[in-house]
Amino acid sequence: MVATGICRTDDHVLKGALKGIDFPVILGHEGAGIIESVGEGVTGLKPGDKVIPLCIPQCGKCSSCLNPNTNCCLKTHLSESQNVMPDKTSRFLCKGKAAYHFLWTSTFSEYTVVPVDAVAKIDDRVPMDKACLFGCGFPTGYGAVVNTAKVEPGSTCAVFGLGGIGLSAVIGCKSAGAAIIIAVDINSAKFDIAKVFGATECINPLDYSKPIQEVITEMTNGGVHYSFECIGNTDTMKAALECCHMGYGTSVIIGEAPSAAQISFDPILLFTGRTWKGSIFGGWKSKESVPRLVDEFMANKFNLDGLVSHTLPFDQINEGFELLRSGNSIRTILMF
Amino acid sequence: MVATGICRTDDHVLKGALKGIDFPVILGHEGAGIIESVGEGVTGLKPGDKVIPLCIPQCGKCSSCLNPNTNCCLKTHLSESQNVMPDKTSRFLCKGKAAYHFLWTSTFSEYTVVPVDAVAKIDDRVPMDKACLFGCGFPTGYGAVVNTAKVEPGSTCAVFGLGGIGLSAVIGCKSAGAAIIIAVDINSAKFDIAKVFGATECINPLDYSKPIQEVITEMTNGGVHYSFECIGNTDTMKAALECCHMGYGTSVIIGEAPSAAQISFDPILLFTGRTWKGSIFGGWKSKESVPRLVDEFMANKFNLDGLVSHTLPFDQINEGFELLRSGNSIRTILMF
Repeated sequence: MVATGICRTDDHVLKGALKGIDFPVILGHEGAGIIESVGEGVTGLKPGDKVIPLCIPQCGKCSSCLNPNTNCCLKTHLSESQNVMPDKTSRFLCKGKAAYHFLWTSTFSEYTVVPVDAVAKIDDRVPMDKACLFGCGFPTGYGAVVNTAKVEPGSTCAVFGLGGIGLSAVIGCKSAGAAIIIAVDINSAKFDIAKVFGATECINPLDYSKPIQEVITEMTNGGVHYSFECIGNTDTMKAALECCHMGYGTSVIIGEAPSAAQISFDPILLFTGRTWKGSIFGGWKSKESVPRLVDEFMANKFNLDGLVSHTLPFDQINEGFELLRSGNSIRTILMF
Repeated sequence: MVATGICRTDDHVLKGALKGIDFPVILGHEGAGIIESVGEGVTGLKPGDKVIPLCIPQCGKCSSCLNPNTNCCLKTHLSESQNVMPDKTSRFLCKGKAAYHFLWTSTFSEYTVVPVDAVAKIDDRVPMDKACLFGCGFPTGYGAVVNTAKVEPGSTCAVFGLGGIGLSAVIGCKSAGAAIIIAVDINSAKFDIAKVFGATECINPLDYSKPIQEVITEMTNGGVHYSFECIGNTDTMKAALECCHMGYGTSVIIGEAPSAAQISFDPILLFTGRTWKGSIFGGWKSKESVPRLVDEFMANKFNLDGLVSHTLPFDQINEGFELLRSGNSIRTILMF
């Protein structure tokens, strides 16, 4: 591994809030690295290739991979455990005992082992501290807008949460031609960078006495066309649905909630014509899409400067998690 | 009025389960009648015309009417009260006191007054006991499939609840070319007619020890492409979402839940790529679509025989409500 980002999903695991994880575990799922060696029978990859481990694999053979409308490969952790390799063994040892893999990526490690369906070769020229963003944050936020919601030119959007995923969603809204992009965060220090990426209005729920969904509904004459929840908080998910316009508003859940979290809501919100969807890894079929997204980045289709707020050496990983929890970082990247 | 159906939404009001209703009220919203007289300035309608009152109006001028993606006209009861006419007066008297209108239709009355935006002229030749179905049940169930879900040929569907709306959804699934149509009801006596309309499998939750969503998921190798909730029960709404396939399944809420009902669910169901939507009046822009649907019926595009299980004289309206509550009727039509 050369570089890895820290994402809230890693922190959910640390807090015991995601089920189906075995401990001790090597976390990390947003990395960029260079192939050291390949296993028997592996084709299309060789030592020296720059690669991105894929937290959502693409086996290319299952019913989901063969279905053009989903990227939820049946080899993801949603269908089967990714705590060990496909042969049911771990490749990590810690003080003589096996440690578990995480999402088949485990990027918080100088060396990792990943199945061939869970790694994508990328352009050799890409800087690795940017490349790692293509392992989770950028495709997830950007794809939720352009693939899952399919935002149209001229539409009104609200993005809840301005971390790496939320700002990537803002980039997606801008790129899709949205006319109004409302960025929402409880930390106003993030508003300057949100505006750089395309936010037309930035609002802080702490500045209002009424619920933020009511503020947005009033700002937009009845609600937005599209809203995006980029935090993983059930209250925000509900607020994001509520600020959508009756009849045609669509809300997309991008943030992963802690396991067993429940949302309680009035079904009239859907009955009256709203749509509620979710998006994993931005709807991208990972192995074929990540190299294309990196190519588009190299062709200057996206400017990701500003998505990384902090860069630390890997041994300061705990400081990186503290930055995430403080709400004061956008994305912290660890360099090996 | 010549004929009117009884729908569960009327019963919700009787039970005090819909908010925003003033009493005493003349209920009924699925009717067919003949114009007795028109008000000043009304064009396009004249005494003797056969018409359907529209429980979802189409004013043609508001932002929703001008938006091709919604039928939620801003004059519906969802935006403003329809308990009185647009001039804020009631046209009903009961024992010398004003009685309120309901959804601007109030079809449980020999004569009713409706705003011009809430009535559609239909083909003179249509039999009125069938015509009234175009006021709610048939367009609602059929349109949820073809407009809201946009079911594709070859897909797998589950329809929860085999009343007038559910069977109309089955008709929609068949017409859209669905390969598998699973009809679900706790009254197996409805299965024969469901099969006539196109159901390929009929299942009764009472026949299984496990939740019906698990039964459907197993029957369909991971879940259906589309599910439809045609009851208005929050438990069934959740079951209908749960039986959709990860990654691409879509569930549509068609039944109206009692006011203040809440659904509690795990957002992972959406996060993993399912879509949850609602549909009012099948997504049809009412005033322009109802006459077209009636024309298609007259051209034998739909055979609605069997959608009406009971026909009673209007003065047996209470027996009609008992039939609805018993779960043993499909649609009861009252004739004046």
